[in-house]
Amino acid sequence: MAEFKTDIEIARAARKLPIQDIGDRLGIPAEHLLPYGHDKAKIGQDFIRQIQDRPDGKLILVTSINPTPAGEGKSTTTVGLGDALNRIGKSTVVCIREASLGPNFGMKGGAAGGGRAQVVPMEDMNLHFTGDFHAITSAHNLLTAMLDNHIHWGNSLEIDERRIVWRRVLDMNDRALRDIVVGLGGVGNGFTRQAGFDITVASEVMAILCLAKDLGDLERRLGDMIIAYRRDKTPIRCRDLKADGAMTVLLKDAMQPNLVQTLENNPALVHGGPFGNIAHGCNSLIATTTALKLGEYVVTEAGFGADLGAEKFFDIKCRKAGLHPAAAVIVATVRAMKMNGGVAREDLANEDVEAVENGCPNLGRHIANVKGFGVPVVVAINHFHGDTDAEIQAVREFVATQGAEAIVCTHWAEGGAGAEELAHKVAQLADSGASCFAPLYPDDMPLFEKIETIARRIYHADEVLANTTVREQLHAWEAAGYGHLPICMAKTQYSFSTDPNLRGAPTHHSVPVREVRLSAGAGFVVVVCGEIMTMPGLPERPAAENIRLDEQGWVEGLF
Amino acid sequence: MAEFKTDIEIARAARKLPIQDIGDRLGIPAEHLLPYGHDKAKIGQDFIRQIQDRPDGKLILVTSINPTPAGEGKSTTTVGLGDALNRIGKSTVVCIREASLGPNFGMKGGAAGGGRAQVVPMEDMNLHFTGDFHAITSAHNLLTAMLDNHIHWGNSLEIDERRIVWRRVLDMNDRALRDIVVGLGGVGNGFTRQAGFDITVASEVMAILCLAKDLGDLERRLGDMIIAYRRDKTPIRCRDLKADGAMTVLLKDAMQPNLVQTLENNPALVHGGPFGNIAHGCNSLIATTTALKLGEYVVTEAGFGADLGAEKFFDIKCRKAGLHPAAAVIVATVRAMKMNGGVAREDLANEDVEAVENGCPNLGRHIANVKGFGVPVVVAINHFHGDTDAEIQAVREFVATQGAEAIVCTHWAEGGAGAEELAHKVAQLADSGASCFAPLYPDDMPLFEKIETIARRIYHADEVLANTTVREQLHAWEAAGYGHLPICMAKTQYSFSTDPNLRGAPTHHSVPVREVRLSAGAGFVVVVCGEIMTMPGLPERPAAENIRLDEQGWVEGLF
Repeated sequence: MAEFKTDIEIARAARKLPIQDIGDRLGIPAEHLLPYGHDKAKIGQDFIRQIQDRPDGKLILVTSINPTPAGEGKSTTTVGLGDALNRIGKSTVVCIREASLGPNFGMKGGAAGGGRAQVVPMEDMNLHFTGDFHAITSAHNLLTAMLDNHIHWGNSLEIDERRIVWRRVLDMNDRALRDIVVGLGGVGNGFTRQAGFDITVASEVMAILCLAKDLGDLERRLGDMIIAYRRDKTPIRCRDLKADGAMTVLLKDAMQPNLVQTLENNPALVHGGPFGNIAHGCNSLIATTTALKLGEYVVTEAGFGADLGAEKFFDIKCRKAGLHPAAAVIVATVRAMKMNGGVAREDLANEDVEAVENGCPNLGRHIANVKGFGVPVVVAINHFHGDTDAEIQAVREFVATQGAEAIVCTHWAEGGAGAEELAHKVAQLADSGASCFAPLYPDDMPLFEKIETIARRIYHADEVLANTTVREQLHAWEAAGYGHLPICMAKTQYSFSTDPNLRGAPTHHSVPVREVRLSAGAGFVVVVCGEIMTMPGLPERPAAENIRLDEQGWVEGLF
Repeated sequence: MAEFKTDIEIARAARKLPIQDIGDRLGIPAEHLLPYGHDKAKIGQDFIRQIQDRPDGKLILVTSINPTPAGEGKSTTTVGLGDALNRIGKSTVVCIREASLGPNFGMKGGAAGGGRAQVVPMEDMNLHFTGDFHAITSAHNLLTAMLDNHIHWGNSLEIDERRIVWRRVLDMNDRALRDIVVGLGGVGNGFTRQAGFDITVASEVMAILCLAKDLGDLERRLGDMIIAYRRDKTPIRCRDLKADGAMTVLLKDAMQPNLVQTLENNPALVHGGPFGNIAHGCNSLIATTTALKLGEYVVTEAGFGADLGAEKFFDIKCRKAGLHPAAAVIVATVRAMKMNGGVAREDLANEDVEAVENGCPNLGRHIANVKGFGVPVVVAINHFHGDTDAEIQAVREFVATQGAEAIVCTHWAEGGAGAEELAHKVAQLADSGASCFAPLYPDDMPLFEKIETIARRIYHADEVLANTTVREQLHAWEAAGYGHLPICMAKTQYSFSTDPNLRGAPTHHSVPVREVRLSAGAGFVVVVCGEIMTMPGLPERPAAENIRLDEQGWVEGLF
C-alpha cells in the first residue's frame, strides 16, 4: 500500500491539464470556454444553445444510505465512478455541486471527493471558485434593498411590513444576523422592521439557478418569487418590484456551468449548490443537461440519503427537466451498516458481522425505494481500510436478497482503477434500457396527498400529522394555482423518520408537519418537519483561526 | 464629425484583443497571466515578485479642479492620455480604480472613461468584474462574524460591546442596513447589540488592499486593524481574534492586479477602489508599482478634485510606497470654469467668457497646490462640443499667468489622437527631471498640526476648529504610537472649504472637525469634516428597474 497522503496533499500533487485541453476533449471551442485562471472555466451560453439538438447521454444517479458520522463517500464514489467509466472507454462527465464558502471558516472545508477520487482545484472550490455564490448573494440582496426602498418611498404596492417573507443572505456563518431589526436611525433610514439573514445556499435564488433551463426561464422564475403579502394576503412578487431583470443580469455568468477536472484529468461540471432540506439539493439542471449533450454518460449525485436526495432528484429535478435516469448507484459502507446496526463510532474498528446484518435493512429499503421509481440499482460498497471479508460478504449477500448486486470499490485508494467493476455494471444497466423511470406522484394529485405519498411510500410512515393552519394553507395554494407543484421535504437526513436517532428501517412512525412554505419561483412547496437551520453559527474555535497562507503561498488550515 | 454614439455603443463595437496579447506586449508569460474570460486577467504574484528589481517607469498623476455637475472627464483624460502616449511611441500603462457594483443599481453605472477614451469590457467592470469586491466583502464580514462569535462563546478578550467599531459591509445600496440591531431571538443567536452595514468600498479592508505592498504586508495590516475596545479603552485588534490569516486567504486573488485594455488595445490595470473621503481614493499600490515595472510611463488618477484626491495621493499613497510622481495633469473644462464662475447648469450652452474668467481661480489654486508638492503641472482642457474659441482662449491665458500651459484635448471624440499634444508635453515634463516631489508635511509632525497644514496650505483656510474630545483623541493616539501616521481628510469634494456651495477659490474660511477615526491597518487618521455617508440608499426609481438582458444577451439599462 502506498504511503498515506491527505486529500489536500493528493490534490496539490495533481498533474492538472490546462482547462482548454479538457474543453477540447468535450468539443468545446476555445471561444465558448471562458477561463477563470488556467484550471477552471465556464461554458458559454451560446455554445449550450448550439448543442441543444444533440442526443442525450445516459444519466447515472449516485445516492446513498442515510448518512452516519462514519461517512459514506457519495461524492468520492461519484468521481471514482466517472473516472472508471472513462477508463473503460466510456466518455463520461461528472456533475457535482459547488461548496459554500462560509461554513469552511467554521469547520474545516471539504474536498470534492476524497483520496484518489477528487475534483481539482480543491482550494479554489472551497473559496470563491468562479464567483457564482457571490452573484447569488448580490441578486438576492438587491431584491431586499428594492423592497425596503419601495416601502421607504411611499409603498404604492401596499406591502404589509408584517408579511414580508423575503430575507437577506450572506455566504458566512453569522448567527448574530439570524434575527435582526433594520431601519433604525430615523426617517432617512426607512421604516423599522424585524428581518434576518440566511446563508446564501438557502436562498430561493440558488434553487432557481439550479432549476432554470436558460436565462429566460431564470428571469421568469425570479419574477414569480413571492416576497411579501398585502394586508389582504394577496402576494407581492419580485416582478412587482421590477427586480427580475437586474437580478438576471447579476446572474448571467453564474448561470454558466463551471468546468474543472478530476485527478485523472476527466471533465467535471461543478455548478450550483442548493440546500438539501428547504431546497432540492442537486447540482444545476443546466450543468446536467449540458453534460448529457457532451458525454455518453453523466454521473451525478443528490444530497443526503436516497430518502431525501434521490426522491427530490427524481420528483423535482427530473420531473421539471424531463430527465430519464438510466441507472442509480447506492453507496454504502460496512462502517455505516455497523452504525445502523447499533455499533458506536468508537467501536467501528472491531469486526461485527451481526451488526452489519442488523444495519442492512436501511440499505434494503433504499434499494426498494429507488427501484420503485423504475430505475435499476447497483450498490457500491465504498471500501474502508479495516473492513473484513466476512463483513463485506454479509452486505453482498443481503443485497442479493434485495434483487441487486453489491460491488466493492477501492477508488479512494486507487482512483478510477478501483471502480472499474462498478463502471462495467453501471454501463451494462444503463445500456440495457431497463429503466422505466416515473416520478412517485402525478402533478395533479392534491398537495397533502403528495406529502402522504412520500411519507408512506418512501419513509414507510403510517401517517402525516398536520394542523388546520397547514392544511388550509395548502388548500389556499391549490386555489391560487400552485397545486401542481411537487413537494420538497425538509426533514432530518439521519433517519427515514423525522427522529434523527431512529436508524435502520423504522416503521409505524408519524411525520409531523411543522410548517409549509411556497417557493413559487423555484416551483415547489417546502414541507418543514422539524427544526431547520438556515443560518449556521461558528463553533467556539472556528477553523478560520488556523487558516493562513504558508511560505509557499499554499492555503493552510482550510482542510 | 462622426455620428453620435453612446459610450456603451462605442464600448460594444470595440475590437478587443485577446487579453494574452495585451499581456504579451507587457512581457507577461502566459503562465503568470490568469485569465477571467477572454478579455480580463489577473497578474500572478510570482511574476510581480520576479520583476521587483527592474527600474521604474515614470508616474503621471491625472487630477482635476473641484468637480461640478458639468463633469470634468478625469478618467476619460487618464485613458486618452495613456492611448496618446502609446501612439507617440511611449510604452504606457493606465492605472484606474474598479467600480462598485451596488451603486449601479441606484443611478446608472459609469463607463471607465468615456467616448473614444474608454477601458473595456465596460459591462463586466460595472458588474462582478473579477470578484475583488466580493472577496473584500467576505473578508470583512468574516471578521465581524468572528467578533460576535467570540463574545457569544464567553468573551475571553473582554470586548466592551458598546465600544465595537467594526461594522459589516455589503456592495449594495441598502439604507435599511445603516443602523440595525443584531443578535435577537434568544441565547442561540448571541448577544443583542446595535450594529450596521457600510458599502464595501468604505471598508478598511479595501483601503488596506489598496495600500499593501504584498500579501505579507496585507496580512500584517489586517492584523493591525482596531475593531473594538475594552472597558479600559485598550484596543482589540483583528489579530487578537486570529482572523488576519483567513482574511488574507480570502483576499489572495483579489490582491492580484486586473489587466484589461483601452479601446485602442493598450494595457490598463483596473484594481481597487477605496472611498475618496474616509479613505484615500486611489487605485491599488500594487497595481501602480507593478505598472511602473511594465511600462515606460504610468498614467493614473486620484479621486475627486486635487484638494482631496491629489493631496491624499501624494501624502498617503506616494509617501507610503516611496513613489515619485514625475508630472501631473490637472483636468479642467470650460463648462466647469463657467459653473465655478457662477453660471447655472441650464445656462452652460451660452458663451460667457467673463464667467470662465471668474471661475478660473479655482483652477489656479489647484495648479499652485500641486506645484507646491514639487510636481510639474500641465492643464488639460477636456473639450466639449459647444466650447467657444474665446472661452478656451480665456482659460489658456489664465493658466499661462499661473506658470503652466493649458492644452485642448479631444480624446473623447477622437481617442488617443486627440490627446497627442498633451502626451508630448507630459512626456517632456516627466523626462525633464523637473519633479522634486516631497509630501506636504513630515511624518513626525503632531497630528493636529498636520491637519492645520493641509487646511492652510491646500484649502487656504484660516483655522481648524476642533473640540477638546477631538484634540484629546489625537493626543491619545500619539501617545499610543500612531502620531507618525498621515491624515486622510473627509470633506466635501465640491469646494476647497467644507461648504459645498462655496465654489471658486475661497479664503478666510474655517475647517470644523466633526470627528476623528483611526484606520490603524490602512495607516492613516481620518478627519471627518461634515456628514459622510458610508451606506448609500436607492432613489425612488432605482436604475435596477430598467436593467435587463436584451434579446442578444446585452445588458440594457445599466448605462
